[in-house]
Amino acid sequence: MSAAALRVAVLQCTSAPLDVAGNLERLDAACRSVAGRADVLVTPEMFTTGYDIGRDETFRLAEPADGPIARAVAETTRRTGVAVVYGYPELGSAGEVYNAAQLVDDGAVRSSHRKLHLFGDLDRDRFTPGQERPRVADLRGHPVGLLLCYDVEFPEATRSLALAGAGTVLVPTANMADYDLVPTVLVRARAFENGVFLVYANYTGTEGGLEYGGLSTVCAPDGTVLALAGRDEQLDVVELVGTGSMGYLADRRPDLFGEASP
Amino acid sequence: MSAAALRVAVLQCTSAPLDVAGNLERLDAACRSVAGRADVLVTPEMFTTGYDIGRDETFRLAEPADGPIARAVAETTRRTGVAVVYGYPELGSAGEVYNAAQLVDDGAVRSSHRKLHLFGDLDRDRFTPGQERPRVADLRGHPVGLLLCYDVEFPEATRSLALAGAGTVLVPTANMADYDLVPTVLVRARAFENGVFLVYANYTGTEGGLEYGGLSTVCAPDGTVLALAGRDEQLDVVELVGTGSMGYLADRRPDLFGEASP
Repeated sequence: MSAAALRVAVLQCTSAPLDVAGNLERLDAACRSVAGRADVLVTPEMFTTGYDIGRDETFRLAEPADGPIARAVAETTRRTGVAVVYGYPELGSAGEVYNAAQLVDDGAVRSSHRKLHLFGDLDRDRFTPGQERPRVADLRGHPVGLLLCYDVEFPEATRSLALAGAGTVLVPTANMADYDLVPTVLVRARAFENGVFLVYANYTGTEGGLEYGGLSTVCAPDGTVLALAGRDEQLDVVELVGTGSMGYLADRRPDLFGEASP
Repeated sequence: MSAAALRVAVLQCTSAPLDVAGNLERLDAACRSVAGRADVLVTPEMFTTGYDIGRDETFRLAEPADGPIARAVAETTRRTGVAVVYGYPELGSAGEVYNAAQLVDDGAVRSSHRKLHLFGDLDRDRFTPGQERPRVADLRGHPVGLLLCYDVEFPEATRSLALAGAGTVLVPTANMADYDLVPTVLVRARAFENGVFLVYANYTGTEGGLEYGGLSTVCAPDGTVLALAGRDEQLDVVELVGTGSMGYLADRRPDLFGEASP
């Protein structure tokens, strides 16, 4: 990898449900505050609208992948020089809605992802599951992939991205305080077992009936925890400096267990 | 599950390389010491011969699956009422040697496993990799599976056993002190992400040029650490009492990522 190390900021924050304009302002302010120090800012799941906003509001606020939220985020990235991963409800061509995320840099969408693994009634009540494997995109010379929340808890999803060449996986999430094992054990395992950087950006505080757990984290390919937020605190910008890895990918047995990637 | 909770003992111990008779005596003594309190004793990888014993000695001590070591272990299980998982070099029909483990109960072999993922030159120098997926066997009413050491570091292997119905995975290992993330992160992740009990039995101390890391551990289906040894200490008998699990298996996307099991 000849590109300079990626510098990642995580916006661990409370949810501001339904306040799209306010959230876009917060996003812009966060990008301004890390401009020149970070290449990309990763926000929590459904950051621009809030996550636990009910079925009706989710459908009302849903927009196509090139809708007004996408255009506002694009403008922020162009103005601040900071790429953004943001979550939103994506309106599909047949009126269905996906729990989606996009990576935007310098005014253009670089990658899109629709949540593949829906979590309980909270997701199933309103979202259609994505039907495409996560893809690898280029971010300033780095091959990156997107997953959303529950997706990363399934080893197959990160494995698939790593086999497709991703060196960094960016994961907006809305993880509740009861599930601390996800950031502290599963996310770390995903980084280690695949030899990738893993960035997991969570909410803090409460939203509707949900109590979020914070603990946003950044893990290195050798399983090192580069950063772990507390329940409420912010993370500093983290530089994804290369570490060794175990080289697990080469030692797999796809002849016995199949391929997680084409 | 109507069977009473499985009671598991782990023989975290130093390696006694090449001393097969002595190791069989140690095994017998360990079974006697937990008789009536444990259903099964799990020993480290290649326990009966030692692990880092070189290619020539590995081939010299290799025996078929029903060889003298198997018969001695069978006799111990019959006499003590404690089932045993033991490791040994298995001599194949064409003279090849596998890094193998067997589960023996009441005088009979209940399950066999040949290591699928060979670790570095230490394994590749002498062992032929197994060519069959791990299988589920019955142990006193409990569906259990065997893996060996490096196998458990690959999420596909435990996933395959869980999908085949295993509720408990027993893993003899020879994990070096540099790799503490395996017992503390990966093993715990395997239990949690598959909703299974995971029993990981390691050496302590040194053997040849290797320094083992101890930290044998028993994890529950909800990710709880039921027991974690230190570098040197023994574990008490652990009762595998049912806990909830996340139910990840039902939420997988085999349509996108393939099946890890037939």
